[in-house]
Amino acid sequence: MSSTFGNYLRVTTFGESHGGAVGAVIDGFPANIPLTAGVIQIQLDRRRPGQSSITTQRDEADTVEILSGVENGRSLGTPIALVVKNKDQRPNDYAITNTIPRPSHADYTYMIKYGVTAKSGGGRASARETVGRVAAGAAAEIFLREKFGVEIVAFVSSTGDVSVGVDSGCSVNSGDSSSKNRIDINTITRDIVDRNPIRCPDPQAAESMEKLIKRVRDDGDSIGGVITCVCRNVPAGWGEPVFQKLEAMLAQAMMSIPAAKGFEIGSGFAGAAMRGSEHNDPFTRGGGQCPPAAPLATKTNNSGGIQGGISNGAPIYFRVAFKPTATIGKEQITTDYQGNETVLKSAGRHDPCVTPRAVPVVESMAAIVLADMALRAGYN
Amino acid sequence: MSSTFGNYLRVTTFGESHGGAVGAVIDGFPANIPLTAGVIQIQLDRRRPGQSSITTQRDEADTVEILSGVENGRSLGTPIALVVKNKDQRPNDYAITNTIPRPSHADYTYMIKYGVTAKSGGGRASARETVGRVAAGAAAEIFLREKFGVEIVAFVSSTGDVSVGVDSGCSVNSGDSSSKNRIDINTITRDIVDRNPIRCPDPQAAESMEKLIKRVRDDGDSIGGVITCVCRNVPAGWGEPVFQKLEAMLAQAMMSIPAAKGFEIGSGFAGAAMRGSEHNDPFTRGGGQCPPAAPLATKTNNSGGIQGGISNGAPIYFRVAFKPTATIGKEQITTDYQGNETVLKSAGRHDPCVTPRAVPVVESMAAIVLADMALRAGYN
Amino acid sequence: MSSTFGNYLRVTTFGESHGGAVGAVIDGFPANIPLTAGVIQIQLDRRRPGQSSITTQRDEADTVEILSGVENGRSLGTPIALVVKNKDQRPNDYAITNTIPRPSHADYTYMIKYGVTAKSGGGRASARETVGRVAAGAAAEIFLREKFGVEIVAFVSSTGDVSVGVDSGCSVNSGDSSSKNRIDINTITRDIVDRNPIRCPDPQAAESMEKLIKRVRDDGDSIGGVITCVCRNVPAGWGEPVFQKLEAMLAQAMMSIPAAKGFEIGSGFAGAAMRGSEHNDPFTRGGGQCPPAAPLATKTNNSGGIQGGISNGAPIYFRVAFKPTATIGKEQITTDYQGNETVLKSAGRHDPCVTPRAVPVVESMAAIVLADMALRAGYN
Amino acid sequence: MSSTFGNYLRVTTFGESHGGAVGAVIDGFPANIPLTAGVIQIQLDRRRPGQSSITTQRDEADTVEILSGVENGRSLGTPIALVVKNKDQRPNDYAITNTIPRPSHADYTYMIKYGVTAKSGGGRASARETVGRVAAGAAAEIFLREKFGVEIVAFVSSTGDVSVGVDSGCSVNSGDSSSKNRIDINTITRDIVDRNPIRCPDPQAAESMEKLIKRVRDDGDSIGGVITCVCRNVPAGWGEPVFQKLEAMLAQAMMSIPAAKGFEIGSGFAGAAMRGSEHNDPFTRGGGQCPPAAPLATKTNNSGGIQGGISNGAPIYFRVAFKPTATIGKEQITTDYQGNETVLKSAGRHDPCVTPRAVPVVESMAAIVLADMALRAGYN
Repeated sequence: MSSTFGNYLRVTTFGESHGGAVGAVIDGFPANIPLTAGVIQIQLDRRRPGQSSITTQRDEADTVEILSGVENGRSLGTPIALVVKNKDQRPNDYAITNTIPRPSHADYTYMIKYGVTAKSGGGRASARETVGRVAAGAAAEIFLREKFGVEIVAFVSSTGDVSVGVDSGCSVNSGDSSSKNRIDINTITRDIVDRNPIRCPDPQAAESMEKLIKRVRDDGDSIGGVITCVCRNVPAGWGEPVFQKLEAMLAQAMMSIPAAKGFEIGSGFAGAAMRGSEHNDPFTRGGGQCPPAAPLATKTNNSGGIQGGISNGAPIYFRVAFKPTATIGKEQITTDYQGNETVLKSAGRHDPCVTPRAVPVVESMAAIVLADMALRAGYN
Repeated sequence: MSSTFGNYLRVTTFGESHGGAVGAVIDGFPANIPLTAGVIQIQLDRRRPGQSSITTQRDEADTVEILSGVENGRSLGTPIALVVKNKDQRPNDYAITNTIPRPSHADYTYMIKYGVTAKSGGGRASARETVGRVAAGAAAEIFLREKFGVEIVAFVSSTGDVSVGVDSGCSVNSGDSSSKNRIDINTITRDIVDRNPIRCPDPQAAESMEKLIKRVRDDGDSIGGVITCVCRNVPAGWGEPVFQKLEAMLAQAMMSIPAAKGFEIGSGFAGAAMRGSEHNDPFTRGGGQCPPAAPLATKTNNSGGIQGGISNGAPIYFRVAFKPTATIGKEQITTDYQGNETVLKSAGRHDPCVTPRAVPVVESMAAIVLADMALRAGYN
Repeated sequence: MSSTFGNYLRVTTFGESHGGAVGAVIDGFPANIPLTAGVIQIQLDRRRPGQSSITTQRDEADTVEILSGVENGRSLGTPIALVVKNKDQRPNDYAITNTIPRPSHADYTYMIKYGVTAKSGGGRASARETVGRVAAGAAAEIFLREKFGVEIVAFVSSTGDVSVGVDSGCSVNSGDSSSKNRIDINTITRDIVDRNPIRCPDPQAAESMEKLIKRVRDDGDSIGGVITCVCRNVPAGWGEPVFQKLEAMLAQAMMSIPAAKGFEIGSGFAGAAMRGSEHNDPFTRGGGQCPPAAPLATKTNNSGGIQGGISNGAPIYFRVAFKPTATIGKEQITTDYQGNETVLKSAGRHDPCVTPRAVPVVESMAAIVLADMALRAGYN
Repeated sequence: MSSTFGNYLRVTTFGESHGGAVGAVIDGFPANIPLTAGVIQIQLDRRRPGQSSITTQRDEADTVEILSGVENGRSLGTPIALVVKNKDQRPNDYAITNTIPRPSHADYTYMIKYGVTAKSGGGRASARETVGRVAAGAAAEIFLREKFGVEIVAFVSSTGDVSVGVDSGCSVNSGDSSSKNRIDINTITRDIVDRNPIRCPDPQAAESMEKLIKRVRDDGDSIGGVITCVCRNVPAGWGEPVFQKLEAMLAQAMMSIPAAKGFEIGSGFAGAAMRGSEHNDPFTRGGGQCPPAAPLATKTNNSGGIQGGISNGAPIYFRVAFKPTATIGKEQITTDYQGNETVLKSAGRHDPCVTPRAVPVVESMAAIVLADMALRAGYN
């Protein structure tokens, strides 16, 4: 059951990094939504390898084919099967991992769980598994956009120790003079995000980040980072009050992305140091800028658009921390599967920093969560 | 479906803050596990209100009754129904919330979603809902302890701006000389945690935290905090590789606790600033201190005991950020449901800081996640 | 997971025959539906033991208590916990089953699966488990009636070899002159059904059935029977096209009732002997008698109100076969758990024929299936 | 969610009759099971159209391709994606159904539910959807055979009014002298079943059935039938005691097959006319012929191998009734979607009797149910 996400919109991904294909089946997608391979391809292209010198050089066109569920450019209400053929598999690059599990990768735990050596690039633990997520997420997003005008934009807000400031929605800090150089989550667009290969909307920070990534790449090393994501125009009333709070489902979705180590919504960890009187988001009459349709709005948005597990109409924003890629070229002193000490110097193609290509993955998982909640709320 | 958690061990909680009872039904609990109301009561007592001057003065004995699933002190393999009667309901304390939604509470979003005013203390959004979680989690924990020797210990690691250092398992930092005053997750016990009402194992920090909490309480205000939790002796091989990664399910579970704003595992957000060569946990021959049974161990534990969604035998540790309680006595300028500006000064009994009583809730949700994964892995 | 039914309306039952209580938790029940213990009690009273000389003499008032989810006579949208205390447990009646598994009962298979002897009347395999189903089904039915005017009526259509004719909805046979003595599923009501203790609406057949049941009872034996159920005013469009066809979910629901051995919908097994030209239900302009709201109606109803897994607006009707009660007073040559031949003469109180009391159970399971489908279709 | 079956082994099918492909994704399939496209192809070939003069003349090779989850002839424990390309789509054959819904087909109910005309042969309601079931079921069966020696054999036991006798396992009737011409479920094999195109193992009955089918085909008509299925060597202890009783899950699975109208297990509807003393299956010492491994066996098998929802080790056998194919060439007086009376004379290729090709579909659904229960019971 591990490869299915969602209860109403159910996305099942399949495919190994070096098998024949990767893809997804979406069950529960509403009928009569305009949908073409072309629109899905846009997000896949943002995720695909080889986009720039700072991403893996694996060469995959990642062309999606729709096998079912769509006819004459519209969804049928039946399962949508999306397939992307693998072209540039090089399982031999990974021969060494048959004897030496890569530190902090899934090789060892897979062996324990399945009794299968993670030949061919890690199988399901590869970033390649996210192709199916992005294909399905792109479809989910079209539904959200068509029916509700939902906009989802993610961007890189930190790489290693280089960070950018972010203005978080309707927050009290919005008018802050220091905000001139900060990213405004109310207005940020994918076009702006895609202006540089880092996908950080602050050009200066992006430049520093790019230099840093090239430096660690040249060292045969890798570096972590943080992605910030905003979901705008989400109607008030989505989410469930107890175990499937909207922020809880977003947390599961984001923490299920390979290399994710942390998730925070709204004020997040910083909110833990605040007092209630400064953290609470007082209400104001709605119809204003932030949540136009809902009867009430909030003056600030420390809640991150969700209260008690349910959206309040304000922008939903959250941050996801990604650790540095586990597969590095640099020598590592570790052991083989038998516990004999050895030196590992990984071949294989990998990104020195996952965040630029993880941006559409974060957006896709957000779209899947929101579409599931939309259907749960009775919109279909 | 919102009130059920888990796939193999399924916990359904029920009950409103000011209704007749709260509780849980556990479906899928294995047969022949020793189980009594008394053992469950221990954790409920750690969660119950009125334990000290820094917690809410609501007076609830929170005595659990087992209605089914247990006979002669052993589980039958059938659903276990656990009920705790509410005694000290005071719905009238909340009359004001019928007209004025509390800022950053669930009153407004509930109204939008259900068309129901959150009379009587917030209904399911109340911390009282966690009684069912703790009762069920205590049972889950007994299963984990009996069958695998799993130990779960949570503690308060920060309150407002007061924090303690934590030694994270087998990490390279373990031997650090500065660690004398740090909490060692390998050895921390609930007995140590419970030595002060804050549930922070560093006595000096606990004292500062207590002072801070009393200060904000006297201001009619509230304060946030962070809980750190460790799960020891979890066998290698638990968790699922894609959407239901162990860390993803823990993230959902923790972010579903009222007031949670952030979750991080292992290195967490700090890991996002690291390089792969320093973040990777190299393998060493197993049988050592940390994961005694597994063939391999890791020299460090930045992974937090999980790699690729699957436990590796090392201690699993994570941190959960809690915002300050939304219900405060201090005056707030906000609006009523119609958008008319007004001043709200909440009555009602509440904790100025949720973390001391959230400690058993965090442990319980961890136990529910792990027991679900244990059964999924075929142990029953 | 075995004790939960449904995906959108999720009913979890709990309780052993000779434990403290039986009951159910309903998750996903819509808000603002009028609901009281009194309305639920009506169906429980139809199910409870001791109603007449032909049912078990166990004495249970089966008074339901609503622990949560309802306030001021209306549902809150939160889980509804329903509890019925057991009063007249006599576990000692069943002492013999600790050593000798009853033929065709669940004693032996429970022992194999759970390693637990089925002391105290069979635990979850007892008909007493159906208390929770009926309580939850009564609530589901109120939702269906309030929102859609759905009417569900079941009755006994055969006992042993005594049967009654049934006119099946809009079928070509409706006008048949021989139908004077047949039960018309378009007009049958619970009031009519309850006119005799057999719950067979044909008084003459009921009398023969009662005689038969008394005869087998006096022989220390038991007898099987068939229940027919009709669901009227179900809107067209409920049900799912593939694995969760409406008839498939009804089949699962009915075959999950203790002692059920067969299920058929519409023409059923008889339909297997027909030609397409006589079996097909041709369309006619809607607005007629049968499915008033839908644009089209069918001239006949061999489909039983469902086509391709989805309701078409015509009455849904189906039949459920029940085997004779396994627990009989008559001597049986069988073995103990060790395989030693022995003679078993069961004590314990049981119904010589389950069908009269199974009538509300069938109705309740039908209501749970339909309410789940209603919510799935977006009504909430 | 409608296109997924199972909880532990989850099969999701996709594909429309006249779209690009049909197929399935199996999630939860255990690792290290030998699996090739060739073994799956065997069952697909038994289901594919054009096998004989009595089946549809649609020409489909139905060649399966495994896209993921298998490497070097062994399963990886990851999702297995199975795809069968459609070759002989003729959507134009179905143009008429855009204006006139076929009586007793899904055209009308689909339109109501999805607002989509069932162009191109009915979409998901087509028998073509069962390709994915058979592909997935074949894989499930290999797991069951490899690990437990389970054997599943289905056959046609009646067509129209032509029926064959069946000896049901260890039943008291086994030794009956009249049983010489009856099908013995203990020994029947697929080889025997496949000796004639009807898939009825009694050669004389098969001949009569074939004549009947040709006669109705020549009339432009169709005919129904019954399939009997037996599952041998199922270990005792599979199945769940309440809502997911083994017979309940089989019932859902079978009633989800297009055209199924009835399901009965063991004694079935006939059992409803029996007394407990004749219906009960007394125990005898195990190790005998029927359930070799289990400690106890039963002298008869009216239970159909399941007691209280859990397998007892005896052969599981059941019957499924199929209505006559709805699509017929014969003229039908019906209406168009607007309710105007019209005459429909369907083109399109269809089977005059679905049962011969439904045999592997029944076996496949049985395999999926049993594999799900096997995993649930902890075998993986």
